[in-house]
Amino acid sequence: MTENEAPMNEKKSLNRRRRPVIDCDIHNNIPSAKTLHPYLSERWRNQLEMVGTPSRIGSAVPRGMPYAARSDAWPPSGKIPGSDLAFMQEQLLDRWNIEYGVLNCLSFQDMLNAEQNAALARAANDWQIDAWLEPESRLRASMLVAFEDGELAAEEIERLGDTRGFVQILLLARTVEPLGRRRYWKIYEAAVRHDLPIGIHFGGVGVGPITSVGRPSYYIEDHGGMSGTFQTQVTSLVCEGVFEHFPTLKIVLIEGGFAWLAPLMWRLDRAWKMLREEVPYLKRPPSEYIREHFWISTQPAEEPPKQEYFQQLLDHINADEKLMFATDYPHWDFDSPDHALPNNLNPDLKWRIMAENARALYQL
Amino acid sequence: MTENEAPMNEKKSLNRRRRPVIDCDIHNNIPSAKTLHPYLSERWRNQLEMVGTPSRIGSAVPRGMPYAARSDAWPPSGKIPGSDLAFMQEQLLDRWNIEYGVLNCLSFQDMLNAEQNAALARAANDWQIDAWLEPESRLRASMLVAFEDGELAAEEIERLGDTRGFVQILLLARTVEPLGRRRYWKIYEAAVRHDLPIGIHFGGVGVGPITSVGRPSYYIEDHGGMSGTFQTQVTSLVCEGVFEHFPTLKIVLIEGGFAWLAPLMWRLDRAWKMLREEVPYLKRPPSEYIREHFWISTQPAEEPPKQEYFQQLLDHINADEKLMFATDYPHWDFDSPDHALPNNLNPDLKWRIMAENARALYQL
Repeated sequence: MTENEAPMNEKKSLNRRRRPVIDCDIHNNIPSAKTLHPYLSERWRNQLEMVGTPSRIGSAVPRGMPYAARSDAWPPSGKIPGSDLAFMQEQLLDRWNIEYGVLNCLSFQDMLNAEQNAALARAANDWQIDAWLEPESRLRASMLVAFEDGELAAEEIERLGDTRGFVQILLLARTVEPLGRRRYWKIYEAAVRHDLPIGIHFGGVGVGPITSVGRPSYYIEDHGGMSGTFQTQVTSLVCEGVFEHFPTLKIVLIEGGFAWLAPLMWRLDRAWKMLREEVPYLKRPPSEYIREHFWISTQPAEEPPKQEYFQQLLDHINADEKLMFATDYPHWDFDSPDHALPNNLNPDLKWRIMAENARALYQL
Repeated sequence: MTENEAPMNEKKSLNRRRRPVIDCDIHNNIPSAKTLHPYLSERWRNQLEMVGTPSRIGSAVPRGMPYAARSDAWPPSGKIPGSDLAFMQEQLLDRWNIEYGVLNCLSFQDMLNAEQNAALARAANDWQIDAWLEPESRLRASMLVAFEDGELAAEEIERLGDTRGFVQILLLARTVEPLGRRRYWKIYEAAVRHDLPIGIHFGGVGVGPITSVGRPSYYIEDHGGMSGTFQTQVTSLVCEGVFEHFPTLKIVLIEGGFAWLAPLMWRLDRAWKMLREEVPYLKRPPSEYIREHFWISTQPAEEPPKQEYFQQLLDHINADEKLMFATDYPHWDFDSPDHALPNNLNPDLKWRIMAENARALYQL
């Protein structure tokens, strides 16, 4: 992370000796409220002017702008972090020799009005094509969808599912119901039809208190607690039989960590042995579905006290196929390619994580 | 578990060659609605007749009687499982040579009317003295308290805190707010004053949906998801500075598993490095508070695929001091002393877990 501060001339030379990497979590931002006007019908332009973008307000302890951004990620243009392509090219893509980067634009995903949400997601996707995918061939994008309405979301996947540049459908971790519920199945059906993975990213408001025991006080609890939400979603997707219905569905867990995944597999396997009659459509132990259907991004990686434990974490989750590097640029907890993984990792495994696993999954 | 079915004459001989163990989680049950009448004032007797015991109804997927009980745990007396001391003596204490057992009576802990809750907790504690602690010297009990009201709970701890036989204060995992919040601090203050650990047991209704993303469909999700609730509670207790305010407070996590604890420590330590200014009263990394202040019961133990992983789980949580055997009798997922731990465990460590750690904590 300290290298972020290196002077520009040094940066230029640095990237030439770098092996290219693929970054699975870059956040592009919509620079202003009017940016999407050209992509919206009059109705939705008026709505935007009139009420903004009302979203559910839960008990999240969000770390919004400017706190969520690296302090050096504000572009000289005065735009907000992540909204200036030229600056992102310089500060991220060139600087770190990013061969490909997947944009996860975190806007318009958690709104009360599903139709407005769908209109804005559609507009944001069209804007992503014009402002990001066409001008910069290294970038790919996740598709925004109004994911709380399975049909509206599926419509957008049908509209853009074969459009070059979109490599994933983006959901947020905190949803209104657990993601295994049938209200979300139309999303999976459409995703599978277009061979697009579903990315589930840190965040979202959910339906009420963000924990099973009410509202926490601190951001550190929200941040540390998100992995609990991911655990709930993995449990739900497996236990509801989603992978029996959609055997080619691929799920990417983004910014949720991964050390919790092995204990969850052990717990669910034990519970399944005793309770399998409750979920008779499951043909295999939960851990087998998890190992087959889930990919994971590196940032933030947990930091066990011993190197051997980290190596085991990698074994548990089939890191040689399923773990994928991410920076989380331009957010405050940015992982640089130099520091995301321990130095003494097996080089073959390292480069699978840094580039090849994402290349295979996203067909880059 | 198969030995439960052994004929009686064989059982009698079995226990003599058994080394005694301490069972940290036995569930005694109140046999009927009228059992507590002698311990209640007229007001609360009338209330009980009139409205019963209204408790919050959330989205838990409870496994109530008779499903929660081992099928062989119904006493010949016709009473409900766990309510017949003579049968418990035979089926559990004698059969398995239990030197000491800690009763966790799961009644009256999650009620809407705090005063009624306090009256019933008081009555149940008095009944526990008469019906369990006085007739059976091997038994100890957790004290029921109306834990959603810190002051009422503290009053009960003051009343009975030095009464022989009560070795712990009992809370349920799903509370109305995270347990680090100040509304619960009077409980900790009173517990520390009487040198009583706080036991947090699987269960409870919480404040709404039992996950951060709404209501799950299956009991297997509720069962597997309880460890998420425990993670939230550990996070809250640490991050709110409870252990800086109460440096001698001891917390026992009962029936929540423990494989998730090391990943939680790693995650919180990493977050704390970056966010410590938000919680400036924390003097040490979260993992240090966790290792010092938390004890854990064995049942249900996660079952990693390799023996070495299980050994590591034990290392991560300081199992030589902090892990304590429990059967969960008479519940369906009963762990027998023969099967709770892997066979090839170091014998010294095994007997610490099976008896000595509980003896030290509960001063038996």
